[in-house]
Amino acid sequence: MFRPQDDFTYLMPVHFGGGRFDPGTIVTQRSTALTVSYETERDLLENYIPEGFELLAPEVQVSFNRFTEIDWMQGGQYNLINVSAPVRFHGKKDHLDGAYTLVVWENKTAPILGGREQTGIPKIYADIEDLHIVRPHYATTVSYEGNTFLTLDFEAAGEVTGQDLDALKSGFASVNTIGWRYIPKVGAPGADLSQFVLYPQGMEVESAQAGTGSLRWTELTPMQNPVQYYIINSLASLPVKSVAQAVLTEGRAVLHAMGARVIE
Amino acid sequence: MFRPQDDFTYLMPVHFGGGRFDPGTIVTQRSTALTVSYETERDLLENYIPEGFELLAPEVQVSFNRFTEIDWMQGGQYNLINVSAPVRFHGKKDHLDGAYTLVVWENKTAPILGGREQTGIPKIYADIEDLHIVRPHYATTVSYEGNTFLTLDFEAAGEVTGQDLDALKSGFASVNTIGWRYIPKVGAPGADLSQFVLYPQGMEVESAQAGTGSLRWTELTPMQNPVQYYIINSLASLPVKSVAQAVLTEGRAVLHAMGARVIE
Amino acid sequence: MFRPQDDFTYLMPVHFGGGRFDPGTIVTQRSTALTVSYETERDLLENYIPEGFELLAPEVQVSFNRFTEIDWMQGGQYNLINVSAPVRFHGKKDHLDGAYTLVVWENKTAPILGGREQTGIPKIYADIEDLHIVRPHYATTVSYEGNTFLTLDFEAAGEVTGQDLDALKSGFASVNTIGWRYIPKVGAPGADLSQFVLYPQGMEVESAQAGTGSLRWTELTPMQNPVQYYIINSLASLPVKSVAQAVLTEGRAVLHAMGARVIE
Amino acid sequence: MFRPQDDFTYLMPVHFGGGRFDPGTIVTQRSTALTVSYETERDLLENYIPEGFELLAPEVQVSFNRFTEIDWMQGGQYNLINVSAPVRFHGKKDHLDGAYTLVVWENKTAPILGGREQTGIPKIYADIEDLHIVRPHYATTVSYEGNTFLTLDFEAAGEVTGQDLDALKSGFASVNTIGWRYIPKVGAPGADLSQFVLYPQGMEVESAQAGTGSLRWTELTPMQNPVQYYIINSLASLPVKSVAQAVLTEGRAVLHAMGARVIE
Repeated sequence: MFRPQDDFTYLMPVHFGGGRFDPGTIVTQRSTALTVSYETERDLLENYIPEGFELLAPEVQVSFNRFTEIDWMQGGQYNLINVSAPVRFHGKKDHLDGAYTLVVWENKTAPILGGREQTGIPKIYADIEDLHIVRPHYATTVSYEGNTFLTLDFEAAGEVTGQDLDALKSGFASVNTIGWRYIPKVGAPGADLSQFVLYPQGMEVESAQAGTGSLRWTELTPMQNPVQYYIINSLASLPVKSVAQAVLTEGRAVLHAMGARVIE
Repeated sequence: MFRPQDDFTYLMPVHFGGGRFDPGTIVTQRSTALTVSYETERDLLENYIPEGFELLAPEVQVSFNRFTEIDWMQGGQYNLINVSAPVRFHGKKDHLDGAYTLVVWENKTAPILGGREQTGIPKIYADIEDLHIVRPHYATTVSYEGNTFLTLDFEAAGEVTGQDLDALKSGFASVNTIGWRYIPKVGAPGADLSQFVLYPQGMEVESAQAGTGSLRWTELTPMQNPVQYYIINSLASLPVKSVAQAVLTEGRAVLHAMGARVIE
Repeated sequence: MFRPQDDFTYLMPVHFGGGRFDPGTIVTQRSTALTVSYETERDLLENYIPEGFELLAPEVQVSFNRFTEIDWMQGGQYNLINVSAPVRFHGKKDHLDGAYTLVVWENKTAPILGGREQTGIPKIYADIEDLHIVRPHYATTVSYEGNTFLTLDFEAAGEVTGQDLDALKSGFASVNTIGWRYIPKVGAPGADLSQFVLYPQGMEVESAQAGTGSLRWTELTPMQNPVQYYIINSLASLPVKSVAQAVLTEGRAVLHAMGARVIE
Repeated sequence: MFRPQDDFTYLMPVHFGGGRFDPGTIVTQRSTALTVSYETERDLLENYIPEGFELLAPEVQVSFNRFTEIDWMQGGQYNLINVSAPVRFHGKKDHLDGAYTLVVWENKTAPILGGREQTGIPKIYADIEDLHIVRPHYATTVSYEGNTFLTLDFEAAGEVTGQDLDALKSGFASVNTIGWRYIPKVGAPGADLSQFVLYPQGMEVESAQAGTGSLRWTELTPMQNPVQYYIINSLASLPVKSVAQAVLTEGRAVLHAMGARVIE
């Protein structure tokens, strides 16, 4: 009969085995990222920031990433759309600034499962096109069962160099990603597990291009996207007042896979 | 700021809202199912049955399902492959027989997330072909990133009628599906949540065909399937000694979505 | 060395072999079809009807089909969207009425190739969702690389019976599908082959539901759909003045695969 | 009514318009290519080389390509597997050496249609994984409806430099790709169009890695791949006697899109 080992960590299904927990586990991947930040209405955005956090700026950051050469996927690849807001956490023990993850769409299921269950990143599925590139134009489309809900466009204006690149590198080097890990009770309302998790992540930026970016959210009906429409429509309801930053980066992500911790 | 409501149930992301917990929630869907059960080696199969359970028979049941008209997906559809073994649970409080879920592959992410987090069904992703039908032959192929790992074949021999149909109907009417819900600790080995969950499910069989079935597992390397190879290879290592049952059913599944409970 | 056989018919690649030409070849498949016809502006629609044809009515017919149990695909399946207009052909030899095929989208490549090269049906690729069904509502979405360009909705009002069903059955029993087979010259403008092809097709309707239907075309930019935008935008430019017919049918298609002929 | 313009070139559907024929049309794209050549049995390979050609060496070349930044697809991308053999054409007018295209699999339909109809390249559909990269290992899997039929593996041994790189660059700079454009008669055996087409193609190699390569063909049944099984099984029947070359290249393809011509 199967019995889990004390010093192992597991994901469902457990009974086929897990891996020895190693706090030093490093995962690496290549990254091409297109990041667009925009100012929105503070009151509206605060509706989606949980109590205990302070919204540092009325700003939404949307980031497309194509990850390749992902070592834990034996060199496989996937795309994601990360949506976050800058926050300060005022806990009983912990006080820190970070990026609160509103939602992440990914086009492969395996990283969705690990991200949700191990670190509370609210990942869900969408089809995400690889970047279409007609230099200096870059574009991607995000959809669910054929229904477009987000398009991202970027026009590169030039290579970032010198001090600007240094600043950008240090900005991307470590990001305090924060997720809300929530596992519901079985057969009852409320949670069996409800924790905020800090997962420091970072990218070693190798090159970057500045430019102008734009994005468009399209509302969907429940018939078009029965399981995510309210998420998309909440984001679509936040006005894009002005684009604060648009940047395309190439680099390498080096993650301490076991480096997350619950914050209180 | 967002605050969860006491009588609601949520899935990540929480802060865009959830639904009022309603113990009477019913979900319905149409089902076309091809079920093949086979006898295997008891010793080998017991490696994957957790302590606390007794293996009632050295038997593996593999079931393809195509669900359509799924109400919580606004009429959408998906396919799954369910793999289980018949067990008896000897708990401190609960004593019951059921089908222990070894693994479930599904070709859509949304039901994977709910199944894992709400009821501990160990669902993971695969590409699953709709049934190819050249009457009386039926076949499907299951693969991961282009790597075939399971094929199922069925040749119908005739409609099930009379008492045989009645027996089959009552057999499918209620199944004690059991999952192991396991959520790992953050930044440490072991679990924050480790529970066995009983989720009674059933199908109202409307018609059924008996026949001969066969299946073939194909081992994969980590390069071919980095995240599931050990699951597939564990199942492939179980010899198919003889096929015990092969049946194709059409019907309707009516599930008490909130009817699961933790067993102890 | 390879030499084609005189009494064979081939598709590229030729050198791996073809099949003996058999004028009696029958192909069969199951069909679920949702057909919506609408009146539009005659002048605009005539822009897309070639000289030699007369537009019989300013009407566009859009038909979703899900084909299953396709015998030449060994029981496989695919979806299509057929767009046609009612015409009369005034040739030197042939005078006949039929449905001129404006374009067909299919979500599998194999039937696209045969349809284009064997019978001049202008098939191209799109992602086409299986019907989402929340009775009495039916819907599908058609997209290209994540960009929605057509949605079809239907609300069933009741079963078609009696004389109405008989009329509908005979209407679907044989349709004079007409395509324009056009193969360009190599290294020069113009065609090496330019023919109108008549391909009588039909469906044995088994049951039908009448109802109300609607559809919506969405224009796409070249960046969203570089190879089809002008087709979609041409169709989107035709106003939907009124929906003439909306019907959902179940049945079986029996096609004389070699029954097409060039009309002159 | 629609009438084609004399100096235009069209693809089906014709009536929505084509493009002015421009003999100087250049199309460009980025390319990552993994090429593996192997010696096989001359007698067996000659079965698939049409009369009029001489097989120059009993060698099969299999090449994976990932194309990105494809200008005619507005910066989109796709993958292909090209299979060819080295031949000499002995025509009435033309005498030349080239690569006879046995088959090409591509994972997008639009280039399949153009390739077949404009230049006789026998393109068909398959799912082709992007390269999985765990340096120095590279791998891809090719499948049809979940059934694996080709795997390619490469282990890089080092950068190609100096004269070796120059030789490789000139070898890739221009390739006499030859296809057999064949359009069947309608309603009769034989062809309406049967021509050999020369389409000079080339890649500007920017960097290259030599290494060891291997590939494995897997036979499929008609049930697994109803429309291509005989092609795959023909190729699988050719023994891989020894791998002659394995190289991974990065570069840019610059094609004279209208530079093909019929050879006689």
